[in-house]
Amino acid sequence: MKISIIGVGLIGGSIALKLKKKGIAQRVLGIDQNKQHLQQAVELGIIDGTADLEEGIKNSDLVIVAIPVDAARKLLPNVLDLVSDQQTVMDAGSTKAGIVQSVHNHPKRARYVAFHPMWGTENSGPGSAVAESFAGKAGVICNKELSAPDALQKAETVISALEMHPVYMNAEDHDIHTAYISHISHITSYALANTVLEKEREEETIFQLASSGFSSTVRLAKSHPEMWVPIFKQNRDNVLDVLNEHISQLRKFKSALEKENYDYLEELISNANKIRGILDK
Amino acid sequence: MKISIIGVGLIGGSIALKLKKKGIAQRVLGIDQNKQHLQQAVELGIIDGTADLEEGIKNSDLVIVAIPVDAARKLLPNVLDLVSDQQTVMDAGSTKAGIVQSVHNHPKRARYVAFHPMWGTENSGPGSAVAESFAGKAGVICNKELSAPDALQKAETVISALEMHPVYMNAEDHDIHTAYISHISHITSYALANTVLEKEREEETIFQLASSGFSSTVRLAKSHPEMWVPIFKQNRDNVLDVLNEHISQLRKFKSALEKENYDYLEELISNANKIRGILDK
Repeated sequence: MKISIIGVGLIGGSIALKLKKKGIAQRVLGIDQNKQHLQQAVELGIIDGTADLEEGIKNSDLVIVAIPVDAARKLLPNVLDLVSDQQTVMDAGSTKAGIVQSVHNHPKRARYVAFHPMWGTENSGPGSAVAESFAGKAGVICNKELSAPDALQKAETVISALEMHPVYMNAEDHDIHTAYISHISHITSYALANTVLEKEREEETIFQLASSGFSSTVRLAKSHPEMWVPIFKQNRDNVLDVLNEHISQLRKFKSALEKENYDYLEELISNANKIRGILDK
Repeated sequence: MKISIIGVGLIGGSIALKLKKKGIAQRVLGIDQNKQHLQQAVELGIIDGTADLEEGIKNSDLVIVAIPVDAARKLLPNVLDLVSDQQTVMDAGSTKAGIVQSVHNHPKRARYVAFHPMWGTENSGPGSAVAESFAGKAGVICNKELSAPDALQKAETVISALEMHPVYMNAEDHDIHTAYISHISHITSYALANTVLEKEREEETIFQLASSGFSSTVRLAKSHPEMWVPIFKQNRDNVLDVLNEHISQLRKFKSALEKENYDYLEELISNANKIRGILDK
């Protein structure tokens, strides 16, 4: 099929690379406000050419919107204005309730499939795109009953080509789950980086001593605000809810240490160890 | 040289494997209360034989103590009681002030080198040991002026064989730095696991959706309490200090979200991004 990718960054670029590799995409057009990204994406073989919004959409069977969630929410109604009943539109945003709401009453709503590939890195831009990113991860589709059967089928073809396993849920549930499983990890990681930067004035020492454990916990703190402020904004209530719980869990560790209650500390750690059984299933 | 390893777990086992591979260790004896670990270590080629404490020490040029920090603190004086002025003892513990203190007035103090290899994983036991663990990481030696020159040199030979870069500091500074760079990451990760386990009752959903970001942030939460409770206990004051700062950093994120002050949220994230410049030097 002929595909347009709106936003040729980490996610859009990685999807394009994999769909081309799999032979699903005969031709990929890139649409992006960032001309440098477009040029880089052409040079890297991520896209076959560039187009403006109208022309790109007109010449595509499938349009994938892979831009920050606030921009996606604004743009998606305009994209749907331009599609026919033979075309399909997917997004790839990390929050779903807001974007689904933004097109709920749109006459072309059935052409849209709400999608979230559960993969990302702390890097951004087409230079970070890699074809083999998504394999084995969840590809979430929200509110599938609001998409036309052929549009849904096209999205499922994409998920299968990305080697993801499809997971279906409604947009509100998605946003609650991702607050737990993705968004809070980012806040924790940002706060940890700020803690170390605040307290550990000797930068050279951080660099010299940083262990693999520290690097992996703080890795997400490299993620850019352009992507993450809109996510936190759109999922504010859920993120606040989980953040409050997280702070109260940290206070338990603080209390155990303050009171030198090492049995309690051991209990807290043993409980946390249960995550192994869930992640390593 | 002939080496005894007290504690043939993740760290002791990994050191043994690498020193044998490099030809530094002609023969490694394993000393461990856990008979299963000893047998496994023999089967895996980590050690060449087993011994009790007295016999193992007697037949070694170098003794490496790689057991939890509370046990090391208790055992180290007994180990030093048994060594001659031709033998060297190193430990591998994650806290240093307490252990250094425990032998400060020992007549054989100069035979001991306080060591901390800045590497670990969430796994434990000889089955997790890997030879190539330490390369490129910091090998910290504390209070080197209290070790005899030939003992220090032996320790430096080990660090070099492990392909680590040596870093020298006093034990108190070490414990402050590791509170920032290692210990707080573990508490954060444990608390994050507990948050998710508390709030996200649908285990199947965690498993299905868990992204690479979540897995890397929560990886350390799999680490066992047998190792970590003693670390937190021995480094309590520093860990509490950093934990308080971390909670106050998380409160800033909470406040930014509660007040919907997204400029402030962006500022907090941009500040955290600076960790990239330090880690990726």
